[in-house]
Amino acid sequence: MERITKKDRRYMQVAIELSIENIENGGGPFGAVIVRDDKIVATGTNRVTSDNDPTAHAEVNAIREACAREKNFKLDGCTIYSSCEPCPMCLAAIYWAGISRVFYGNTQQDAEEIDFGDKFIYEEIARNPESRSIPMRMIMREEALRAFTEWKEKEDKIPY
Amino acid sequence: MERITKKDRRYMQVAIELSIENIENGGGPFGAVIVRDDKIVATGTNRVTSDNDPTAHAEVNAIREACAREKNFKLDGCTIYSSCEPCPMCLAAIYWAGISRVFYGNTQQDAEEIDFGDKFIYEEIARNPESRSIPMRMIMREEALRAFTEWKEKEDKIPY
Repeated sequence: MERITKKDRRYMQVAIELSIENIENGGGPFGAVIVRDDKIVATGTNRVTSDNDPTAHAEVNAIREACAREKNFKLDGCTIYSSCEPCPMCLAAIYWAGISRVFYGNTQQDAEEIDFGDKFIYEEIARNPESRSIPMRMIMREEALRAFTEWKEKEDKIPY
Repeated sequence: MERITKKDRRYMQVAIELSIENIENGGGPFGAVIVRDDKIVATGTNRVTSDNDPTAHAEVNAIREACAREKNFKLDGCTIYSSCEPCPMCLAAIYWAGISRVFYGNTQQDAEEIDFGDKFIYEEIARNPESRSIPMRMIMREEALRAFTEWKEKEDKIPY
């Protein structure tokens, strides 16, 4: 990764300010900014409790907004600045979105100390489905495969 | 995990039907159903390309809808039936939502065969931030920590 520039610090500063303001606005202490070609495309804050949406983390919200603005489901070439190291959900969303670079401020350990720990989820994801703490079981695979067969045969699909 | 019941098969059948219908509706071949107390609380399908939202997987959409309906950011006691094994984003969302049980039809390998592979993301998540394929770097931790300190000191916060 190339060296950290003044601009990188400036965008991270915006993410940090969002994380602080968001506490006063009834959300969690997290903010994120998505930048393309030296322009802020979207910002996001943690709105889990205020929006009743467990997926409304700062990074996910910023990704959703950036994609809506760009009318695209991919964000290749974009950089995300997050006030905190992404949780596994946000990290996977970053991969699905094709974001090119990630900067973060607070670490997973810092988050753990204010009871926003995601270490447990990182550990669970690394396990086999059968040995996770939430019971997980495969059923009706043969029936479910029908959708995949139809997808495979469909000619005018949008792959991603 | 207790044995599979007729009801479990019936709900999975709904998820599978959604996954098949969704192909015709311009989405990906994935469907999910969230059930509480033997009632469907919400359903979801993959709307990534149709909604320009890389986070719009069937499970995430079902979780968001269930939470909106229940006006709660937690879904403890609910079961999710997904036509396919959840990707890391959806799996982490399931943990954040506190869902109690997961049934899935198609496996990760089945998804891989129709080019919806998430094995790569599972592998990346297990790595240290510095050794992931998307460059990830910590900057300005001291500044970012301010939000966490303010959060810690806030008295009327909603923890989760």
